[in-house]
Amino acid sequence: MTELEIYISELCRAAKRASRAISGLSTAKKNAALLRIADVLEQSTHEIVEANEVDLKNPAVPPNMVDRLKLGEDRVRAVAAAVREVAALPDPVGGGERWVRPNGLIITRERVPLGVIAIIYEARPNVTVDAAALCIKTGNAVVLRGGKEAINTNRVLVGVMQRALEEEGVAPAAVSLVDDVTREGTKILMRQRGLVDALIPRGGASLIKSVVENASVPVIETGAGNCHVYIDKNADLDMAVKIAVNAKVSRPSVCNAVETLLVHSDVAREFLPLFAEALESQSVELRGCERTREILPGIKEATDQDYYTEYNDFILAVKVVDSVGEAIEHINKYGTMHSEAIVTRDIAAAEQFRRGVDAAAIYVNASTRFTDGGEFGFGAEIGISTQKLHARGPMGLAELTTVKYYVLGNGQTR
Amino acid sequence: MTELEIYISELCRAAKRASRAISGLSTAKKNAALLRIADVLEQSTHEIVEANEVDLKNPAVPPNMVDRLKLGEDRVRAVAAAVREVAALPDPVGGGERWVRPNGLIITRERVPLGVIAIIYEARPNVTVDAAALCIKTGNAVVLRGGKEAINTNRVLVGVMQRALEEEGVAPAAVSLVDDVTREGTKILMRQRGLVDALIPRGGASLIKSVVENASVPVIETGAGNCHVYIDKNADLDMAVKIAVNAKVSRPSVCNAVETLLVHSDVAREFLPLFAEALESQSVELRGCERTREILPGIKEATDQDYYTEYNDFILAVKVVDSVGEAIEHINKYGTMHSEAIVTRDIAAAEQFRRGVDAAAIYVNASTRFTDGGEFGFGAEIGISTQKLHARGPMGLAELTTVKYYVLGNGQTR
Repeated sequence: MTELEIYISELCRAAKRASRAISGLSTAKKNAALLRIADVLEQSTHEIVEANEVDLKNPAVPPNMVDRLKLGEDRVRAVAAAVREVAALPDPVGGGERWVRPNGLIITRERVPLGVIAIIYEARPNVTVDAAALCIKTGNAVVLRGGKEAINTNRVLVGVMQRALEEEGVAPAAVSLVDDVTREGTKILMRQRGLVDALIPRGGASLIKSVVENASVPVIETGAGNCHVYIDKNADLDMAVKIAVNAKVSRPSVCNAVETLLVHSDVAREFLPLFAEALESQSVELRGCERTREILPGIKEATDQDYYTEYNDFILAVKVVDSVGEAIEHINKYGTMHSEAIVTRDIAAAEQFRRGVDAAAIYVNASTRFTDGGEFGFGAEIGISTQKLHARGPMGLAELTTVKYYVLGNGQTR
Repeated sequence: MTELEIYISELCRAAKRASRAISGLSTAKKNAALLRIADVLEQSTHEIVEANEVDLKNPAVPPNMVDRLKLGEDRVRAVAAAVREVAALPDPVGGGERWVRPNGLIITRERVPLGVIAIIYEARPNVTVDAAALCIKTGNAVVLRGGKEAINTNRVLVGVMQRALEEEGVAPAAVSLVDDVTREGTKILMRQRGLVDALIPRGGASLIKSVVENASVPVIETGAGNCHVYIDKNADLDMAVKIAVNAKVSRPSVCNAVETLLVHSDVAREFLPLFAEALESQSVELRGCERTREILPGIKEATDQDYYTEYNDFILAVKVVDSVGEAIEHINKYGTMHSEAIVTRDIAAAEQFRRGVDAAAIYVNASTRFTDGGEFGFGAEIGISTQKLHARGPMGLAELTTVKYYVLGNGQTR
């Protein structure tokens, strides 16, 4: 084993031990630890902001990352407030159902923590605290591997959280940071079988690809969002314009923003000019299919590669289709099973879309931008799953737990 | 791409198309298909038994596999009866919850099929039909990769099922067989990302190892069962003997049989001779730790390797421990998180064991042998999950489904 392998496996082993301790804590104790974390975070604002300034001064940080990386005084307060909100949520651990079998066995299906959750993420340091808070709330230990750009900030944040845990008598190893920012270290983390119970990668296509190729621990894939809005022939076109514009421009960098607009050929001649006009002040680059370009002659051509691309930017592919069925086929071929919208007045078209599209969230007459734990009413979110096993769509606290069967007998044999 | 790669990806692509068709079928239609399958199976008994005899005559079949491989007239009837039982179960697809958000969005969390389920299994040909029936019932397409020893039987069984589906107007590709028994083909199947929605390996440690190393599709691990029975110092020793004997000898080849017995040192001198006496007629080989061998001097020594081994045989490791805590530590170190039992009269010991042991099923005063979909009251079982994500313990019909959020708006934007 290399030194790095030994370091990471020891870290995960300590997390495993801490997970056994924290899994049995009462809700009151876990909430006390969270409130203490929020307090100590606020008390440590100066230390945190200073470390963050070191990260921000790194010349290797790309300019478009600065906003995500920045953790000023106001954001530290917001992060602490978010921790207090997590403390106020109901605790899913311990709940369950019970039934009695004809032979007298009493079976309880009990909700329990997963154990050790590893999270690999990018620049945003607020994720460090958010993720830790959600894991503590659900009785899990968390191993954090943040982006290299935020390493100084993350070291201080994790140190602060560990201090708070210690003050509350909770095992500090329940929150730990992989203090290594190499790709090699990330790969080693993905292979801690028996120590890491679930790995949640939060990032772009290249991270997901690396996880799929290298991970041997169970994974919940999140975040890849190549989303579509389909304007049906029976759409209210004013509503359609509002929804399509909102889905693209309200926050193009996030996973629930739209990347390709599909328009029924019956309404394309009327809709597309209205849409282009509404976008005029927004400097969105449109890339269209041949039929789109007949209607909007000035725009670039959309290639097959465009339809596969999650731009996360002010770019939108546009394609004219001849039926709901063609829209569904396009989405199932090019999409990432995240969030897909239809704008229509027609129940039959909406039902065909709902049944036919294979995605976490299907919208009828609303923007794809609502796929979010907060917007869905879950109170918190650790990510948006684009896989079908375990969790699909926004993941709240319950998705950080598993079940355990407890069977009480009085001597039954089989 | 090799010919084999093309063959398997085309097979999975056809399964994907069939899954889109079968996912939308009504419960009545799916049940009609199942009943038709049961009928055609019975009508084809002669053909099935003949193919099975070809498999049985293969000199490469190990003698201890013959019983599992055999599919005589009576077993064909039993297989058909099991399909009719699946038809009679409630259909989980389509159920769900709904809530309304303050902005008026109506969110429905709907239960939907997974899509394409691939199952890799060993010799028993009844699994071919059982697994297909459970997948059809839940609106999934299934890709079956059975053991090479059963290939002739499986070809006929799948052909019969496809005929029945066709007669009912259901896409026959909803059930398909990977007609290739090489390891290479299995590895290719594990990598059909975007086509296979879930892979369920049913088999021994070497299959699980290959899946962990090679799979890029989402996996539900099943079957590895290194289970323990712990006899506490406050146990009813007569009950303890009955439970320990039952957990070992009632069916040693299955995953919920016990492999290591842990005995508290306070009762070891009284319990172990009683236990050895009860086992006398059963020809079970005991392998003990030093303290066990002081009490039962005739037996072999248990090595560290023994504690890691799932014997699936008439062999049992025995270890004396000094506390519930030591038993828990041993189980969490050597076990496979399957089924773990404590025999005790003491509530505190039982609670410590329930909380401390990290496993799918925890038994107090009952045999580990009850971990089974039928025994738990689920009506059917596709396997016993030993992982924590998606499903844990016996998997019934609900575990073959996922969720989809359906969001109905009237123009909401964010």
